[in-house]
Amino acid sequence: MGNYTHQTAPTQFVEATGIRFAYRRFANRRFGVNIDIPLLFFMHFTGTMDHWDPALTDGFAQDREVILFNNAGVSSSSGEVPTSIEEMAQHAAAFIDALGIKKLDALGFSMGGLIAQQFTLDRPDLVRKLILVGTGPRSGEGMASLTPEAQEIFGAKYDPADELWLRVFFTPSKQSQAAGRKYLERQRARKENRDPLPNEKVAPAQVAALQKWGAPAKDPYAYLKKITQPTLVVNGSNDVIVYTVNSFILQQNLPNAQLILYPDSNHGAQYQYPELFVEHATQFLKG
Amino acid sequence: MGNYTHQTAPTQFVEATGIRFAYRRFANRRFGVNIDIPLLFFMHFTGTMDHWDPALTDGFAQDREVILFNNAGVSSSSGEVPTSIEEMAQHAAAFIDALGIKKLDALGFSMGGLIAQQFTLDRPDLVRKLILVGTGPRSGEGMASLTPEAQEIFGAKYDPADELWLRVFFTPSKQSQAAGRKYLERQRARKENRDPLPNEKVAPAQVAALQKWGAPAKDPYAYLKKITQPTLVVNGSNDVIVYTVNSFILQQNLPNAQLILYPDSNHGAQYQYPELFVEHATQFLKG
Repeated sequence: MGNYTHQTAPTQFVEATGIRFAYRRFANRRFGVNIDIPLLFFMHFTGTMDHWDPALTDGFAQDREVILFNNAGVSSSSGEVPTSIEEMAQHAAAFIDALGIKKLDALGFSMGGLIAQQFTLDRPDLVRKLILVGTGPRSGEGMASLTPEAQEIFGAKYDPADELWLRVFFTPSKQSQAAGRKYLERQRARKENRDPLPNEKVAPAQVAALQKWGAPAKDPYAYLKKITQPTLVVNGSNDVIVYTVNSFILQQNLPNAQLILYPDSNHGAQYQYPELFVEHATQFLKG
Repeated sequence: MGNYTHQTAPTQFVEATGIRFAYRRFANRRFGVNIDIPLLFFMHFTGTMDHWDPALTDGFAQDREVILFNNAGVSSSSGEVPTSIEEMAQHAAAFIDALGIKKLDALGFSMGGLIAQQFTLDRPDLVRKLILVGTGPRSGEGMASLTPEAQEIFGAKYDPADELWLRVFFTPSKQSQAAGRKYLERQRARKENRDPLPNEKVAPAQVAALQKWGAPAKDPYAYLKKITQPTLVVNGSNDVIVYTVNSFILQQNLPNAQLILYPDSNHGAQYQYPELFVEHATQFLKG
């Protein structure tokens, strides 16, 4: 994997179940880095590998190998986006099996957190520890459809287009917006071999999957008892995309979960406080 | 303050508003310790200075000066325990003024967290940062009286008597109880000049104060908007003494608060995970 960083890691490809998965893996190969247990990142709604914050990926890569990927049908990966979280988790497992990885830590953000939960349920032996950021349980509060705030935010136009994320991930406060602009700068810093933006079929399929996951159900949180891995749940104080209370519900229903909520922050609290988040998550992964 | 520790710090006394306050202050006086801003500990229901966990007090004393005290009427302090949190906060402020301290960080646990909130509201210029552990807001959930669980736990007999704290602070799980026994060992380790146990007037007065604070009120959380200090809220996943949801309510209503909830833990999560708690709180105090 060389001594790559977020900016320089080449996009590689591996084939599994007829899909050509695009991925990048990198670590700071200094002495003492744990390359046995990589940290696998599960991306959010309409995101690609380029939407991860280098402050996080390079931050974690100081201590461990980091793996980013595009799931089936997204950006540089081939195939179609399925309309269920379960199928997305199956694709992710096929991808990991194709890489020959037997043990990993998983970090899922928003929709990626749903996939990471399902992936952990399906393949408990693969997952050592789990980090769930800005996400929620099945049938969580306000999760049967995009929240009214999300509908408004995703429905508006932005120029440049990626300023969308200033509203999805950050609060309206001056401090949060300033942190958001720094995130955008970091996220734009990779210039070569960026991922193509997702095509027009991605968002509708992902919305369908989100709605199935979020639909009302009987005893919806019971499944969380089966996720016995140590789990770190993280969110902002005022998440309007996946309401913050869902992080509390996750923590209260998972058998072994720690919760951290950050102040004055929205869906992307981990991008607003990247150093603190990497510090907290690294403590959790080491502990 | 010499180079004292939790075990060796002498009990000192200072007089204010007719009350002789017992206190201990200590720090590891190595180079770089911040002795400008001490960390003041606010004790829980029926506790004395000896009920603090040396793993916490000595842990924090690596980086800063620590001040423990008994409020009016408790143990080695003279006077009467008042029947309101407001008067307890006034006593604490009189004590701090008598020591000539102009700026501090405050850590309040359970009832001590209520006093620390009121102290911060009364004397905002004194408080730089606030740590609220196992506590709740005015009129919090289940706070109008001792919870049914608390009534049962505090009403039972224990032999030795301090095994009460195994049930107040820890969950029934094997891991939590084992951590509880280690806490008891640490807490018993100071042999000389221990505080006398509180007299029989302390608990009823403190219960009266707790009930006034917890009584239903209109818009009860509005006051939290006035606590603008950076605040760290910490609790266990399953606090049966001050229900865990109260920590979430605090975080959601304080303008600048971070929340950390630990897994498989009750009212004394910070004693179950003392190293992790000191690490998290130290990050918060330094950040």
